[in-house]
Amino acid sequence: MNYSIIRYILGIVLKLEGILMCLPLIVGIIYSEKSAYSYVITIAMCLIIGTILSHKKPKDTEFYATEGYITVSLSWVILSIFGCLPFVISGEIPSMVDALFETISGFTTTGASILSDVEALSYCNNMWRCFTHWIGGMGVLVFILAILPMRGGQRMYLMKAESPGPSVEKLVPKVRNTAMILYGIYTVMTFIEVLLLLISGMPLFDALTTSFGTAGTGGFGIKNDSITGYNSSIQIIVTVFMILFGLNFNIYYLILCKKFKQALHSEELKAYLLVIFATIGIITFNIRSFFPTIGEALKHAAFQVGSIITTTGFSTTNFDLWPQVSKTILIMLMFMGACAGSTGGGIKVSRLLILIKTLKKELFTIVHPRGVKKITMDKRPIEHETVRLTNIFMVAYIFILAFSILLIGIDNLDFTTNFTAVAATLNNIGPGLELVGPTRNFGLFSDFSKFILMFDMLAGRLEIFPMLMLFAPISWKRQ
Amino acid sequence: MNYSIIRYILGIVLKLEGILMCLPLIVGIIYSEKSAYSYVITIAMCLIIGTILSHKKPKDTEFYATEGYITVSLSWVILSIFGCLPFVISGEIPSMVDALFETISGFTTTGASILSDVEALSYCNNMWRCFTHWIGGMGVLVFILAILPMRGGQRMYLMKAESPGPSVEKLVPKVRNTAMILYGIYTVMTFIEVLLLLISGMPLFDALTTSFGTAGTGGFGIKNDSITGYNSSIQIIVTVFMILFGLNFNIYYLILCKKFKQALHSEELKAYLLVIFATIGIITFNIRSFFPTIGEALKHAAFQVGSIITTTGFSTTNFDLWPQVSKTILIMLMFMGACAGSTGGGIKVSRLLILIKTLKKELFTIVHPRGVKKITMDKRPIEHETVRLTNIFMVAYIFILAFSILLIGIDNLDFTTNFTAVAATLNNIGPGLELVGPTRNFGLFSDFSKFILMFDMLAGRLEIFPMLMLFAPISWKRQ
Repeated sequence: MNYSIIRYILGIVLKLEGILMCLPLIVGIIYSEKSAYSYVITIAMCLIIGTILSHKKPKDTEFYATEGYITVSLSWVILSIFGCLPFVISGEIPSMVDALFETISGFTTTGASILSDVEALSYCNNMWRCFTHWIGGMGVLVFILAILPMRGGQRMYLMKAESPGPSVEKLVPKVRNTAMILYGIYTVMTFIEVLLLLISGMPLFDALTTSFGTAGTGGFGIKNDSITGYNSSIQIIVTVFMILFGLNFNIYYLILCKKFKQALHSEELKAYLLVIFATIGIITFNIRSFFPTIGEALKHAAFQVGSIITTTGFSTTNFDLWPQVSKTILIMLMFMGACAGSTGGGIKVSRLLILIKTLKKELFTIVHPRGVKKITMDKRPIEHETVRLTNIFMVAYIFILAFSILLIGIDNLDFTTNFTAVAATLNNIGPGLELVGPTRNFGLFSDFSKFILMFDMLAGRLEIFPMLMLFAPISWKRQ
Repeated sequence: MNYSIIRYILGIVLKLEGILMCLPLIVGIIYSEKSAYSYVITIAMCLIIGTILSHKKPKDTEFYATEGYITVSLSWVILSIFGCLPFVISGEIPSMVDALFETISGFTTTGASILSDVEALSYCNNMWRCFTHWIGGMGVLVFILAILPMRGGQRMYLMKAESPGPSVEKLVPKVRNTAMILYGIYTVMTFIEVLLLLISGMPLFDALTTSFGTAGTGGFGIKNDSITGYNSSIQIIVTVFMILFGLNFNIYYLILCKKFKQALHSEELKAYLLVIFATIGIITFNIRSFFPTIGEALKHAAFQVGSIITTTGFSTTNFDLWPQVSKTILIMLMFMGACAGSTGGGIKVSRLLILIKTLKKELFTIVHPRGVKKITMDKRPIEHETVRLTNIFMVAYIFILAFSILLIGIDNLDFTTNFTAVAATLNNIGPGLELVGPTRNFGLFSDFSKFILMFDMLAGRLEIFPMLMLFAPISWKRQ
């Protein structure tokens, strides 16, 4: 293991975090809040420790997949540990475990909270809490890749380890440029949402925090009732942007390059939109008697489907009271998740497409044992390696799901709560059902269970392998 | 598709069913029950229709995997349709849908019931209900293979389609002899259990029906409280035999051949026993306060673990009242299931072993990209085809699980009920939790949901592909 390069990158990550914390610091100064001092302390710590770690450039530049996975998982852990300090220092979330849970939930864009009253937080802490979504959405290392000179091999391993989806595509030959383009699109789209929300009458602070939560498909809000209290046009803007941020960012790049035909022919895009429209239709029909007009039912159905399939986790109504069909559809969407290469979590639409295609191919092979059928996606054959990795991902995913449900069982809560708590964290959604439903929070779990759920959030965001490698003895044994 | 050979085999299956129904008929005559006449009618129907179908020997002997799958799935459907007639004709289960549910539950060794009072059934109907477990446990076509002259290729396809596990091994070069050995071991073990139960003071009728339920790992009993009312030694005998019938029958064959070393070195056997001992230990500790003595807790823990991991479904206590850790362990065991090549259901221990091994191999490959590591089982390399089929099985399994939960959601019952109802039928266990818990029954579902659960039971017993092929348009299009 090349420890020196890992130390070096971790140092840069910390320095970056210190710089990013200037946003909540400025907010704290504007609102002249006492809590702002906690950011001064934390920024100083980040910059000092970061500088010490990254002071000496590593001579050994050997960097393989293992280093990539370990660097990414450690970066996220360290980012979260330092990120939770302002909450603890300001005393607004006094328990270190709770603050860490909240911060990991932020960076992993989960949106699961231990807070029962988020409105009690200071402006600067609320800004930081929502800003972590934006940072985690596109990825910290992707950002570092965009700004830091690094060797090609290193970049690719880091990009692979942090980016969601069954296979990572570079938009342009250079990883650095790809990272820059991704962050560019991400920033511009966030800016447009802020603008539209301002026009719809939202205050600037709310517009910024809500946009961060939408862009990262995170789900933290600054109101106890999430998006419920805002007007309809705000709710509709958020619905549309949640769905847009759940799209593969390659699509936007293709549109920028004016390759409209290629963009619109993406099988994943079509499947994603089909599922969204179909489930909105079914749920609207299913919940029509819950609302005065069918339009109202449609609005809430669309918001909740968009919120869950993109794993954002905002809510405009308590969907835990809906009929079982609608609730079960939402649970299925929790697992499905958004498109690969988006800021959303879950298994991802493209992975499910690959799995369905392998299943269809198998039935074909049974009927035509000597027939040859290639699995294709967007008219290109899917590499055997991608299919294999998809299968292994599913296996690891199911094992983690099962073990987590088992382990948090010691808190003796009901099965639906446990099942949906794990589903909501592993898929980076936020709220589950029953005791962790949209109007409840995760504060009722024991510290032990909170650590399990923190692991699940990180495993979900980093798509399992970086976290598995972090805890697998085999990765530390290597010379 | 070779329709003539399928018709021919279905005819034989029906004739066989007619003959097997003589057992409940005799019971009905002994107890001079009115319901016995319904067996006379059904036997006559089976023999007449069976003879018509199998009268003309097919000239075309072409028989491939598709024919194998379709023959097996159709055989089980027809077996169930005729098998449910005595319940309907005797008027003891007047609804055809309910009677079909009960019979499919019997043949697939699920043990899920729609009856709230099984003690109200006549002796002959109770005998038939439990006997279906024994017939379905080892498989109907395996039995036919043992007695009927057929070509080697046909036999292998039928055997593969009906036998549980990731890969089918022939014990001896000839499929016919393998089938005979399997049924021989099965019969002798059932006989020993009957004998031991008689010695422990069980009446003959109870001993026979209980042994049929244990041998097939089915779970139908003749008492409303399952095995609760019997004495401790009977409960312990049933515990031991459930676990024994969950073993791969190859192990018994190896022991018969005095290959003890090979038998004891089976990785699946070791994993199966390890899981059983570990979970009994944890559950005993977890439920110790529910019982007067630790011994009592151990007895109930062992019984329930044995009952669930082998997917039998007998119960000696209402485990739905146990703490969440124990309940969650039982839910996990529902999915795990018994060994391949046993009469038990579920995913099977060997499949999970293969999946864990592929996962470990993947971590190894990340750390040592140029290293070569072969996945082995019992010191022999696992074929790539087996790994591939295991993955595809898991994918199909998860899709069926998810869709079934979604579809039965229309009955608007709670999520735990729906989730465990599907888990309990797809894994051929019987009872679930909440509204389908060990003291409840499946009668509360709508007919639509019952059909979904019937499909799940058949898909579970036949390991999915025969049922998928039956409904896939592609298999009927082939010339």
